[in-house]
Amino acid sequence: MKENRDKVNAAIVIIGNEILSGRTQDVNVVVISKWLNEQGIKLEEVRVIADLEIKIIKTINELRKNFNYVFTTGGIGPTHDDITSKSIAKAFKLSYGYHREAYKILEKYYGKSKFNLGRKKMAKMPKKASLILNPSSGAPGFVLENVFCLPGVPSILKSMLGGIKNKIRGGKKIFSRTIGLKTVESEIARSLENVQNKYKNIEIGSYPFFKQGKVGVSIVIRSIDQNLIFRCYKDIRYFIKKKNIKIIQV
Amino acid sequence: MKENRDKVNAAIVIIGNEILSGRTQDVNVVVISKWLNEQGIKLEEVRVIADLEIKIIKTINELRKNFNYVFTTGGIGPTHDDITSKSIAKAFKLSYGYHREAYKILEKYYGKSKFNLGRKKMAKMPKKASLILNPSSGAPGFVLENVFCLPGVPSILKSMLGGIKNKIRGGKKIFSRTIGLKTVESEIARSLENVQNKYKNIEIGSYPFFKQGKVGVSIVIRSIDQNLIFRCYKDIRYFIKKKNIKIIQV
Repeated sequence: MKENRDKVNAAIVIIGNEILSGRTQDVNVVVISKWLNEQGIKLEEVRVIADLEIKIIKTINELRKNFNYVFTTGGIGPTHDDITSKSIAKAFKLSYGYHREAYKILEKYYGKSKFNLGRKKMAKMPKKASLILNPSSGAPGFVLENVFCLPGVPSILKSMLGGIKNKIRGGKKIFSRTIGLKTVESEIARSLENVQNKYKNIEIGSYPFFKQGKVGVSIVIRSIDQNLIFRCYKDIRYFIKKKNIKIIQV
Repeated sequence: MKENRDKVNAAIVIIGNEILSGRTQDVNVVVISKWLNEQGIKLEEVRVIADLEIKIIKTINELRKNFNYVFTTGGIGPTHDDITSKSIAKAFKLSYGYHREAYKILEKYYGKSKFNLGRKKMAKMPKKASLILNPSSGAPGFVLENVFCLPGVPSILKSMLGGIKNKIRGGKKIFSRTIGLKTVESEIARSLENVQNKYKNIEIGSYPFFKQGKVGVSIVIRSIDQNLIFRCYKDIRYFIKKKNIKIIQV
């Protein structure tokens, strides 16, 4: 795959009715996204979809063409609503069944006598997949080409990210700098736009906050170029000084 | 629009680099989703996308064709990175500029002397849009056909949902019942699958949890038919009793 390795991007697919129904608050996007920042990979899209085979297949086949990496979470457990592995096999038109290595790992983890059908199901996946080891609860995730399938339980997912590092090639690390201001957005909108226009390749975000009685704005500067961030930061400092706006801790 | 009003669906589009970068934890999906449940509308997809015009246009135009309702959050503030309103106008090929009613509301809210350019920008939107009033901070959201544009700040968004109720037509309310079990998923996977196969039109989810030293599984039954939920619940109670599994509070 020929590509510009400065810019490596990714998408996440959260698979799970429990997120769509509002029952469960997703917390995996933040974890994966921060980890991707460290690898120099920019998360550019997230989709939350239902446990529906046709939907999973369509979404995966669309995203894996358009992004360097795709991460899925959820649906690789032992119950009837865990259909991610089977659906991914179908998306890739690969045969689905017991993965020899995964089977061995799970048999060892549970012990032969407790290795029941439900547990065995977790060894079913695209047979040619390469595994992502699970240091906290046995059942591995898997990788097919640029698609990485992870569990939905946050603590388990977190424990598995380290094992992916050697399976991806990141880009340049993305740095960020945040400035907290005691102001409202409309007071700085014009000046901030001028700075953004000057630095086309930097991402400048403006986010109002209301917490503990404080009202303010966080300005976030993001780039792979730390020098550029510093120059942009100085320009912002210049106009906030002129406007007599106080800097606050955020 | 001819359709089956039993099944009304929706998608959410979260617009904001701050969610993708991992800086901000989205909490709006849960709020909107729970509110949609109350209206009998099923949330079927969520997308998180960047503050990029071309991406917003493409996503909105795809989703508004495929869902009864689309809700966007974020990007309707006064700064340069707030491009949702303009992008939505372009998606609908409608003219973008000062919305007469929104302008009046904001002018009154801030007072003529404090109604600066940044604040005026929040009155810019597709001119023909109908407004969603904002009881907490003045700046309104807007509706175009089946697309509802809301702000990203959770407390403000929450305060605006009530004002949408008369602009949508919900379906049958979706009910749910949760059973907490002191077990692991693999112990109940087979029996649960049998129950799911018996009740094709019910959504049965199985979710392991690990909290405060307790390990268990939550089974969630969802349907628009409360009788069906009850029958399904009884079948589940039957097999957990047989398996001698303890019910616990979740």
